[in-house]
Amino acid sequence: MKAVLILSRLWFWQKAPKSSVAFSMPAQPTGAALSSRPLLQFEDRQHPVEYHMKEAKTLKHKADATPDKVGKAFNYLDAAMSFVESGIAMETDPQTPKSAYTMFAETLDLIRFILKLKGSVNPSAPATDKDFTVLCMRGLSLLQMAMFRYKREAALKYSRTLTDHFKSSLKSAAQAPSPCVSKSTGTPSPMSPMPSPASTTSSGPGSNHSSGVGAGTVSTVAIPQVIQQVASSYVNITALFLSAHDIWEQADELAHKGSGLLSELDLALGPLSLTSTMSSLVRHTRQGLQWLRLDTREAQ
Amino acid sequence: MKAVLILSRLWFWQKAPKSSVAFSMPAQPTGAALSSRPLLQFEDRQHPVEYHMKEAKTLKHKADATPDKVGKAFNYLDAAMSFVESGIAMETDPQTPKSAYTMFAETLDLIRFILKLKGSVNPSAPATDKDFTVLCMRGLSLLQMAMFRYKREAALKYSRTLTDHFKSSLKSAAQAPSPCVSKSTGTPSPMSPMPSPASTTSSGPGSNHSSGVGAGTVSTVAIPQVIQQVASSYVNITALFLSAHDIWEQADELAHKGSGLLSELDLALGPLSLTSTMSSLVRHTRQGLQWLRLDTREAQ
Repeated sequence: MKAVLILSRLWFWQKAPKSSVAFSMPAQPTGAALSSRPLLQFEDRQHPVEYHMKEAKTLKHKADATPDKVGKAFNYLDAAMSFVESGIAMETDPQTPKSAYTMFAETLDLIRFILKLKGSVNPSAPATDKDFTVLCMRGLSLLQMAMFRYKREAALKYSRTLTDHFKSSLKSAAQAPSPCVSKSTGTPSPMSPMPSPASTTSSGPGSNHSSGVGAGTVSTVAIPQVIQQVASSYVNITALFLSAHDIWEQADELAHKGSGLLSELDLALGPLSLTSTMSSLVRHTRQGLQWLRLDTREAQ
Repeated sequence: MKAVLILSRLWFWQKAPKSSVAFSMPAQPTGAALSSRPLLQFEDRQHPVEYHMKEAKTLKHKADATPDKVGKAFNYLDAAMSFVESGIAMETDPQTPKSAYTMFAETLDLIRFILKLKGSVNPSAPATDKDFTVLCMRGLSLLQMAMFRYKREAALKYSRTLTDHFKSSLKSAAQAPSPCVSKSTGTPSPMSPMPSPASTTSSGPGSNHSSGVGAGTVSTVAIPQVIQQVASSYVNITALFLSAHDIWEQADELAHKGSGLLSELDLALGPLSLTSTMSSLVRHTRQGLQWLRLDTREAQ
């Protein structure tokens, strides 16, 4: 039964029109033995930006013209991956050093559009619908991580500037609290507070977010305008990471409700993580799309 | 030669005093075939907090009494992992719901102490020295991620509060800039700006961190005190992630200069990532420590 399934997949690919990817052995030989599904062969050679842009446009036009909603969503995600490849090519092209960020930002919007088009995840929808949503969510997450990496140095600098500002402004405040009273200054050892663990719950960084941020505080403080601008930029940059991390965890949760295709993908290509490269994202998504296309065709 | 090496390792473990971990087949059978090294067997059963605390104290006292610097550092990292296990046990113990954060924070200090004790990475030091430093750095990184997860909900809330504040304060400012003039509001497509990619480089979020944050700006703005407090807490929480991500990437870079032990570890146990659990960190670190002990004993 399983063999017939695989054969029908092979047959489909032999009959399929010439594609930019061929299937063969995977890049990571360790995974090959662990999956019985057909594997795409990815080219190691890097193409120029124009090549990927042309492919992306073709795939997007194909998606625009696809009548059924599922096929349309699949094709848009395929197009999104070519836009990501354009971004990757831009990163190494000296002519377009700053455009990769913009390309990733706009691909992010395209994937958000796909998710909107597809509609929210219906608990009664087929498991492959959840697999597809997870692929999109991982794309959203990793694109935001890629954008975050462009701004990380700035964020680290701003973090220091803001920490210094808050430290000195706390020092000079009339009603300065002493948040560190109970913090030990001796040699580090988790042992010291342990005879009575309950005594540490109301001190330390754990209480950061509840200290003084109460309602009804109407007093204002004057801060340098430059600090306000740094804080605003800092919030924008770190929002990329917060969102990436949040979506990543949601995707991991949803993955458990999928068809099992995503675990096979992890076995065959190695798992994706929050620090995966854009190239790994493209490989994973393309391979996942190929399998999803085969599985949804068989289900019809 | 390889067989002799493995046999000598087996011999060492048979002669070694009774340990809390025995070596046998790994938890993940897929990795077993890929590593010829001995693998620790980890218990699935969870022990109470006190059990891990007792073990942690014993290991720490052993480290305190170890004369040679390398062995001392190894033993301290072993102790740190038992403190992490205490933290994990605290998370499920209803009596100590808040102490896990403190335990992780203090274990972080202990690992920083180990790195200080060991001294900075010397390019001429043995490759196993780099392996050990990577294990410590991954511990630092993942402990900060665990602490960040405790505060993530607060960070998301603060992010929204601050974004709203900056938005309304920008609107009301007399010299309000228009940072979004060039942003398209139509359907999302990375294609639109592409005929002339260079035209997009000076707009969009990419220019966030350079807009107006110049020197010489001395004017001040009044902000509600509560916003200052929220901003201060937000910077503290996000600093955990920024540092975790930064250390993670440094560790990945240093891992390439190691002995190859870390790649074997990834193959045998599955790779760690920024979103790995504390339990995975303990398994990785303990297994890495076992192999490092065997390798450094053989080198002597």
